[in-house]
Amino acid sequence: MKLSRKDILGIKELSVEEITLILDTADSFLEVSTREIKKVPTLRGKSVINLFYEASTRTRTSFEIAAKRLSADTINISASTSSVVKGETLIDTAKNIEAMNPDLIVIRHSAAGAPHMLASLLRQSIINAGDGAHEHPTQALLDMMTIRSRKGRIAGLKAAIIGDIAHSRVARSNIHGLTKMGAHVVVSGPATMLPREIETLGVTACTRIDEAIKDADIIMMLRIQTEREKQNVFPSLREYAQYFSLNRKNIALAREDCIVMHPGPMNRGVEISPEIADGPHSVILDQVTNGVAVRMALLYLLTGGNS
Amino acid sequence: MKLSRKDILGIKELSVEEITLILDTADSFLEVSTREIKKVPTLRGKSVINLFYEASTRTRTSFEIAAKRLSADTINISASTSSVVKGETLIDTAKNIEAMNPDLIVIRHSAAGAPHMLASLLRQSIINAGDGAHEHPTQALLDMMTIRSRKGRIAGLKAAIIGDIAHSRVARSNIHGLTKMGAHVVVSGPATMLPREIETLGVTACTRIDEAIKDADIIMMLRIQTEREKQNVFPSLREYAQYFSLNRKNIALAREDCIVMHPGPMNRGVEISPEIADGPHSVILDQVTNGVAVRMALLYLLTGGNS
Amino acid sequence: MKLSRKDILGIKELSVEEITLILDTADSFLEVSTREIKKVPTLRGKSVINLFYEASTRTRTSFEIAAKRLSADTINISASTSSVVKGETLIDTAKNIEAMNPDLIVIRHSAAGAPHMLASLLRQSIINAGDGAHEHPTQALLDMMTIRSRKGRIAGLKAAIIGDIAHSRVARSNIHGLTKMGAHVVVSGPATMLPREIETLGVTACTRIDEAIKDADIIMMLRIQTEREKQNVFPSLREYAQYFSLNRKNIALAREDCIVMHPGPMNRGVEISPEIADGPHSVILDQVTNGVAVRMALLYLLTGGNS
Repeated sequence: MKLSRKDILGIKELSVEEITLILDTADSFLEVSTREIKKVPTLRGKSVINLFYEASTRTRTSFEIAAKRLSADTINISASTSSVVKGETLIDTAKNIEAMNPDLIVIRHSAAGAPHMLASLLRQSIINAGDGAHEHPTQALLDMMTIRSRKGRIAGLKAAIIGDIAHSRVARSNIHGLTKMGAHVVVSGPATMLPREIETLGVTACTRIDEAIKDADIIMMLRIQTEREKQNVFPSLREYAQYFSLNRKNIALAREDCIVMHPGPMNRGVEISPEIADGPHSVILDQVTNGVAVRMALLYLLTGGNS
Repeated sequence: MKLSRKDILGIKELSVEEITLILDTADSFLEVSTREIKKVPTLRGKSVINLFYEASTRTRTSFEIAAKRLSADTINISASTSSVVKGETLIDTAKNIEAMNPDLIVIRHSAAGAPHMLASLLRQSIINAGDGAHEHPTQALLDMMTIRSRKGRIAGLKAAIIGDIAHSRVARSNIHGLTKMGAHVVVSGPATMLPREIETLGVTACTRIDEAIKDADIIMMLRIQTEREKQNVFPSLREYAQYFSLNRKNIALAREDCIVMHPGPMNRGVEISPEIADGPHSVILDQVTNGVAVRMALLYLLTGGNS
Repeated sequence: MKLSRKDILGIKELSVEEITLILDTADSFLEVSTREIKKVPTLRGKSVINLFYEASTRTRTSFEIAAKRLSADTINISASTSSVVKGETLIDTAKNIEAMNPDLIVIRHSAAGAPHMLASLLRQSIINAGDGAHEHPTQALLDMMTIRSRKGRIAGLKAAIIGDIAHSRVARSNIHGLTKMGAHVVVSGPATMLPREIETLGVTACTRIDEAIKDADIIMMLRIQTEREKQNVFPSLREYAQYFSLNRKNIALAREDCIVMHPGPMNRGVEISPEIADGPHSVILDQVTNGVAVRMALLYLLTGGNS
């Protein structure tokens, strides 16, 4: 099977077959990163632009490593050192990059929809590396890859997603992906962080974390944006931690073989207690390892791996 | 023919034969960027340092892509993360870089003459990627390449350069290049932006844009430094736009087959109206594409392509 | 002989045999940087992460060039653009990097011991590129390589190290290395910069620079942190320069064939006078050239060159 699309903008648009193809391809690339020589010549002569309008370590590094393991050239452009400071529009920046004939552009932007605009205007493949509070598809794909490899399947599992559901692109992409793949998703967080219409996406919402965690196979903790404390979205970090952190006590409500996930970077002691982050249920570092494989798969599939 | 010089510091020093050699070489490299495998092994084992003391997206990215398409290694050094902050002199920084044995150094600096100082002190080839208000030779070369490819020739054409002539390294390099190649250059801008002695460079100066544009084959709009508004070099952006922008109305004065150029990044609605920037006369994105080819040509010619 | 250690954290831990092996290996790599094609395929398919929590030009660039000359892939992570800003702990950042399966991590951090923590937690090889005021082992190795190549030996020589001994990781690493290799080390600086217990490291301390310089074979000037002037560690830069700079007058006290070293970046006119920095005794740029070779040697020895 081939991936017949130019871009990866969100999980919402992907079919079950496409997600499965991507995860299968990622599984096969996982092995490359464990070799003595971690490099295959697949994308030799291709160039990948990492266009990051928001600071990032793990996502940018993961894409860069993925591209290099496939022998592609990578060029990093970050907003802080770019002509963004000179007031150029995103479209003009993008059209300029297009004119230099790269093969693929990875973009992270604070504005929801920025990658979609690029996809519609440029002939290059675009991968959304996170756009505002909208989607972060490669995160959801690596999460699904991790679940599948740990649980053997996604369908029929109960997944709890806990935190600031309203502002989380990780939550949104995972809701689309996990429900599509047949999981039952329960979201939980303070009322101010739970959008009213969220259940229209096919999930169950509850303001008590215990209810979400109960019998869960998967517990996905979201990073709390500590800077929101000042915006009165929640009373205090201490109180947030008291009611919505995952800890030794409430994890007992989940299934005994549950897995704990976090997209990182973690606020230890806020949304997750250190003994859970480092405990036997945690698959947080597997997520990172799988992230490289998922990104290799997407770079491969979008730049000719399907031809 | 060979390029028998170590450095590319300005267009002023180049002969017509040298410019022609560079443009011919660039034409032949243009094709590489359209291949499936956009890479030739020409500069394998060579290393190129991009030493940028001013922020830049397109120029740095263009040089980086050019070097990688030739299989050179690239190392980026930007002032913001360098020991410049520790007060080291430019010469000491440069001598240190020299001691690491790269093959070529690309430098952008806010001080006019900085690349020349490096060229006289270091054994490596130096390419000036913009020095103060002095020269930006690779920009002029890509501009001439674009003109030649669109018009078949440069000699005999009328080129209008509009904007802040006094502070523009793009204007200065193009004035040297275009007059040398036989074009008739007319420059225009507010009186405060038109240096008195500019006509000694062989151009015609006028304060009315219409006069410059009339019958022009080439209209080159310069980016207005919006921060100069505060320095009272011009009354207001609005007024600047009213008198010196290129728009649907005044472009009618130019030749019907005129081409519109801009070095980017554009201030849409200030020095150029959006319908002109995106219109049929615009070759602005061709300039970007040709920029990669020109830089490949220079890297090639300076690091052994002439041996 | 093989290097049977996973990491290079400090000179303190290295044996004379290990230092000799590293210097011998570096000598043999020196030649690569003088070739027409400055690249060997030794580390093809290996990836090196440069994790820099402090700004640096020469060290980061030197490691990056060293890795590329060995055909390794390099990924730069600097604190300013990383999720460090999001409050992630160093350990979590490091565990994340580990999960992406690079082969080697080069770290610079303002906290003494940071590289050691990483070394104990991660399976990857760690190279300390400077940790607080603790150690900077690659600097001391390149210094010893430079001395050995200029003097033919280290044992029996008198080395004077002048400056802020208390806060200098360069001093500390060199004290360990030079005493170990049999040199007699004399340190000198203002009393506030000379730790009381320094002589327990096997060196002689004196507050008069003349005493240190007298009959020295090697004079190693340390960079003065000009920002310490405000902290009242010394009265003024002018006074510091008057009493502790190396100049034409006091260098006459040293051996006629003495060599002058500086780790850079230099404060010309403060700790070293320009005529000495650029004079016949100076081996400052040799240090930089040797730095690339030493780092190539370490990357090689730690990633399989000893297997």
